[in-house]
Amino acid sequence: LFSSGYKAMNPDIMKERQNATFDVEKLTHILDGGPEKTKRRREIELMVLNDPDFKEEDPNFLSRSERYDQAVRKSAQMILKLREYGIADPEEIYCYKKFVHPDRPEPLDLHLGMFLPTLLNQATPEQMDRFFMPAWNLEIIGTYAQTEMGHGTHLRGLETTATYDPATQEFVLNSPTVSSIKWWPGGLGKTSNHAIVLAQLYTQGNCHGLHAFIVPIRDMNTHVPLPGIVVGDIGPKFGFNEVDNGFLKLENVRIPRENMLMKYAKVEPDGTYVKPPSAKLTYGTMVFIRSMIVGESARALAKSCTIAIRYSAVRHQSEIRPGEPEPQILDYQTQQYKLIPLLATAYAFTFVGQYMRETYHRISGDINEGDFSEMPELHALSAGLKAFTTWTTNAGIEVCRMSCGGHGYSRSSALPDIYVEFTPTCTYEGENTVMMLQTARYLVKSYRQAKAGQQLSGIVSYLNEAEHRRVQPQPVAARPTVVDVNDLASLVEVYKLRAAILVELAAKSIQQELQRRKSQEDAWNNSAIDLVRASDAHCHYVVVKLFTDKLGEIGDTAIHSVMSSLALLYALHGITNNSGDFLQAGLLSVPQVLQISIRIKELLSQLRLNAVALVDSFDLHDKKLNSVLGRYDGNVYENMFEWARRSPLNATEVHESYHKYLKPLRSKL
Amino acid sequence: LFSSGYKAMNPDIMKERQNATFDVEKLTHILDGGPEKTKRRREIELMVLNDPDFKEEDPNFLSRSERYDQAVRKSAQMILKLREYGIADPEEIYCYKKFVHPDRPEPLDLHLGMFLPTLLNQATPEQMDRFFMPAWNLEIIGTYAQTEMGHGTHLRGLETTATYDPATQEFVLNSPTVSSIKWWPGGLGKTSNHAIVLAQLYTQGNCHGLHAFIVPIRDMNTHVPLPGIVVGDIGPKFGFNEVDNGFLKLENVRIPRENMLMKYAKVEPDGTYVKPPSAKLTYGTMVFIRSMIVGESARALAKSCTIAIRYSAVRHQSEIRPGEPEPQILDYQTQQYKLIPLLATAYAFTFVGQYMRETYHRISGDINEGDFSEMPELHALSAGLKAFTTWTTNAGIEVCRMSCGGHGYSRSSALPDIYVEFTPTCTYEGENTVMMLQTARYLVKSYRQAKAGQQLSGIVSYLNEAEHRRVQPQPVAARPTVVDVNDLASLVEVYKLRAAILVELAAKSIQQELQRRKSQEDAWNNSAIDLVRASDAHCHYVVVKLFTDKLGEIGDTAIHSVMSSLALLYALHGITNNSGDFLQAGLLSVPQVLQISIRIKELLSQLRLNAVALVDSFDLHDKKLNSVLGRYDGNVYENMFEWARRSPLNATEVHESYHKYLKPLRSKL
Repeated sequence: LFSSGYKAMNPDIMKERQNATFDVEKLTHILDGGPEKTKRRREIELMVLNDPDFKEEDPNFLSRSERYDQAVRKSAQMILKLREYGIADPEEIYCYKKFVHPDRPEPLDLHLGMFLPTLLNQATPEQMDRFFMPAWNLEIIGTYAQTEMGHGTHLRGLETTATYDPATQEFVLNSPTVSSIKWWPGGLGKTSNHAIVLAQLYTQGNCHGLHAFIVPIRDMNTHVPLPGIVVGDIGPKFGFNEVDNGFLKLENVRIPRENMLMKYAKVEPDGTYVKPPSAKLTYGTMVFIRSMIVGESARALAKSCTIAIRYSAVRHQSEIRPGEPEPQILDYQTQQYKLIPLLATAYAFTFVGQYMRETYHRISGDINEGDFSEMPELHALSAGLKAFTTWTTNAGIEVCRMSCGGHGYSRSSALPDIYVEFTPTCTYEGENTVMMLQTARYLVKSYRQAKAGQQLSGIVSYLNEAEHRRVQPQPVAARPTVVDVNDLASLVEVYKLRAAILVELAAKSIQQELQRRKSQEDAWNNSAIDLVRASDAHCHYVVVKLFTDKLGEIGDTAIHSVMSSLALLYALHGITNNSGDFLQAGLLSVPQVLQISIRIKELLSQLRLNAVALVDSFDLHDKKLNSVLGRYDGNVYENMFEWARRSPLNATEVHESYHKYLKPLRSKL
Repeated sequence: LFSSGYKAMNPDIMKERQNATFDVEKLTHILDGGPEKTKRRREIELMVLNDPDFKEEDPNFLSRSERYDQAVRKSAQMILKLREYGIADPEEIYCYKKFVHPDRPEPLDLHLGMFLPTLLNQATPEQMDRFFMPAWNLEIIGTYAQTEMGHGTHLRGLETTATYDPATQEFVLNSPTVSSIKWWPGGLGKTSNHAIVLAQLYTQGNCHGLHAFIVPIRDMNTHVPLPGIVVGDIGPKFGFNEVDNGFLKLENVRIPRENMLMKYAKVEPDGTYVKPPSAKLTYGTMVFIRSMIVGESARALAKSCTIAIRYSAVRHQSEIRPGEPEPQILDYQTQQYKLIPLLATAYAFTFVGQYMRETYHRISGDINEGDFSEMPELHALSAGLKAFTTWTTNAGIEVCRMSCGGHGYSRSSALPDIYVEFTPTCTYEGENTVMMLQTARYLVKSYRQAKAGQQLSGIVSYLNEAEHRRVQPQPVAARPTVVDVNDLASLVEVYKLRAAILVELAAKSIQQELQRRKSQEDAWNNSAIDLVRASDAHCHYVVVKLFTDKLGEIGDTAIHSVMSSLALLYALHGITNNSGDFLQAGLLSVPQVLQISIRIKELLSQLRLNAVALVDSFDLHDKKLNSVLGRYDGNVYENMFEWARRSPLNATEVHESYHKYLKPLRSKL
């Protein structure tokens, strides 16, 4: 990777591996979902790795335009090869793509992930004939243009209009204001020649709300923007340098009536609007994407922990005992306290991601048979967990970066890149605070149903119990605490009770606001802090529970033991970070909280022994990490020096600015 | 700034300003330290603003090399103009520089901020003659090369050697290992022709520890690296794109004996080493820089809040009440909960920064007269507050960025830049965890002194009281709580008690570890989590106290009122975020914690009315913010569109990658 010849493994990291108490390969199989899956994943990764067409220059050394250029080149190659090798399973495509563009988004993401699927879901057979094969063969390259400069979350607020003109049987599309300019869609700026545009449909003088239209935006041959189309790149961002997120201003753009996606809603030639039969069908996609993001959180955190923990095993600094050699920084309790709870979190989120994917596929089957009964729960769960896991991961990546000291700030660590590519997940596909409030809406509704005597099932069934137990905030001493802080089942129970109490608190806040003659809406807004807190506690409970459940599936004794310690650390660390909640509700006593602090320290020094093996189990190839600090062989410093020497600023020994500004300055001073 | 013609102010933001309950200009005077200071600051800012030599291209549109080039150009101009205008007061220079390079570091930072001052402090009169004027006139451009690739925090671990050769009366400098290569010094990569190199001094067969040597690294005329010097740029980083942080590998580089900085320690011609008289003298610089960083935290947070709050007043999204227009996002309780406590924090840190600067100057006077008595306290305080304020600010900037939704992710918001330029403060000039532990060392020492019967004075005097009160963790119900949650003096008291308890807990943890036959050093390391927590509580107490103290200096009733609300919010928000500590110690009761949550909501909706005026008072010029979202006039969308159109990817309508990869792909599929 760093063009260095073969070097022996760093002795510190070798020693760490020798001291591991479990079989790393077996844990990798558990994470992949079985040894066959591990094998196939590695086959796919090797295909990309050994393919000279995917050789690339480190993007950190390229300009934005060069990065975009390199990404388009690789994406084009990727399309060819996927078809050449007949890789068609979505998970395998995903795996291949994630290795071609190591965890970087790419210009064709929206064509493949939104344009084609939207056609499949919403095009009529005639439209499929006209658009699908050209799009499949990349004559048509499309994107999905929903978000506007002034409107994101609130779809009803979108301003773009599509007005039907029966005289010509065309829609006339317009961006009536600056704030209505389409903004952000990936691939819109330079790559696409078509866009699916979401616009308010007007016909026969009435507005029928948002509908999707296929709009040609660039000439199919010259790629020059068509008349009435103002299109371009929205400019540099924090990350996503490979993607031409774009803007689109529509100025009386006319498209044939047949370009409205009409599988469900329709506009007839005379302008008559025909309503769609049901709105539930788009529900699934959102749930699917949010569930995927939970998995992304796990992967981003796994990468960050791999880099920070390997580097912490190699890096020596300062002294614990005077006169002795500088210790590995992983021996510092503060360093363990930063990294090992995040490692536990990465495992927790991995298992939650697996659960979400499995649940989605199970429920998808039901939906295809018309059974939507489990959908609201999954919808609420995916919204909240998307927010919970991305927020935690977002902060966690930065903890990992800063735990690497100065070198974490170098692009050679890869940690800045992991952060900037990951952080948009907190915003896109449902802004996190909005997501938390959606989950809260479901929780409060469930709470009220339980209170009204309905028997709840599924993951919110604990709200039934809350009624019986009349759990509520009260002084600690008044409640006998029964929890065993070393028993996971018991900890799942306190997390559950905490969630129940916080849901109740939020519901009561709304009640109190209503009693002050506030409207429902104002009461909701004035309780939003409590509602977010309740959702957070609910998600936290779900994560602790799913991690604990997972332990039951692990047969290997050695792995079971280390996973149990990780799960325990995850649960206890969450309690110390939120000890106010547990004390306030009388779920834990003060001595127990102190006991937990001590137990955490024991778990840290115990897990420290397996820390390197635990990140090795994620089996993240050096090519994918692209990090000097996180290299498998631990040879950090030589490779950092080699990397730096390739920096563009070192292309010449003397930078021209010396002759232009610095030398002439002397005579003027 | 964005080349737009005159536009009326956005009506939403105008309304916010009209509704303010206090005089913005008067609060600006308080922040600047008086109306004259405000006036002078604005004069200096106008000098830069009206100077065509400081016109610049938005760095976001430039390559790394172009950014470096532009920064060198402006730095050279800056040196000329500062001397032309006779600006010599350090604070005025700082103000000028911060406007020339709007809060961006620049290539001459280390020449001006470290090379020249080190000469002043450590050069002999003969060395001053040889080096100072050439450096003042920028014939010599220098940097300060301390950190090595493998060594940062722990100075004794540095590996670079300077071995005296009495035969030629020269020092021979070497980088004996890869990890000993000097790494990170600003301006080292391309700009400097000299470096002050910190190296282990060897003479007559003995090592005498770190000393500073002036090493020529590039030819004074051609700027080509000298023989034995391997020098270059360390490659791209998260930010700091204008700075050529560099590496330096020394291969038997010989310098005359007279190039060792010998004001204190000396090596005589025959190689005899002469010890320095005292080591205390370098103490002050560290304290000064760390105090300055507290001020930097305040400014970074003030900028971020200015951008996020102005944008939140302009941005409309979703609905609170159905059918009504989309509300300003500042009306959402969750948005207020994200931003207004950070606004309070920005004010708190501003006042802490003022206090630190004043205290430093006061104590500096004492030091010049040989009185070091207050230095240890200030040293401990500056270390902890540096860590406390930078960590809080670091996380706060990102909260501000994400509170702006997708647009916060655009470089046009300036928030990504504020983050990447600020975040190194958590690492440099003393890594934050190390800083917290330094403060903890002082606290534990003071605690032990108090326990041994010594009467403590100064900011740690509360550790005396702890002895009397025998405060310790105990069930809530057992302690009568007396605090009035609306009274700041009472809140200062509970913060103080919390700190006392956590210092005691940490000291006891060390004690317990010692009883388990651990060595002092292991006992310390095994208590490090508790020690950091104690330092954090101590710093938090200091900030609440200084904010409260500041209120006494504010005469204007309207300003006093709004500042009191901010201080109260700061204190109460800190309690809810750490409610476990306060409950655990029995300092607050459960009903009080609930009461605080309600009080916070009231303060949010009350302060929301003045939010825009409160950020206006920071008086941050649009040129300095460089943010489309944070513009004073609130005309966000038009300017975002203009900015995007200037993106380099829009230089051509069709990107070459279309012809190179996408069009050819069609025939292959």
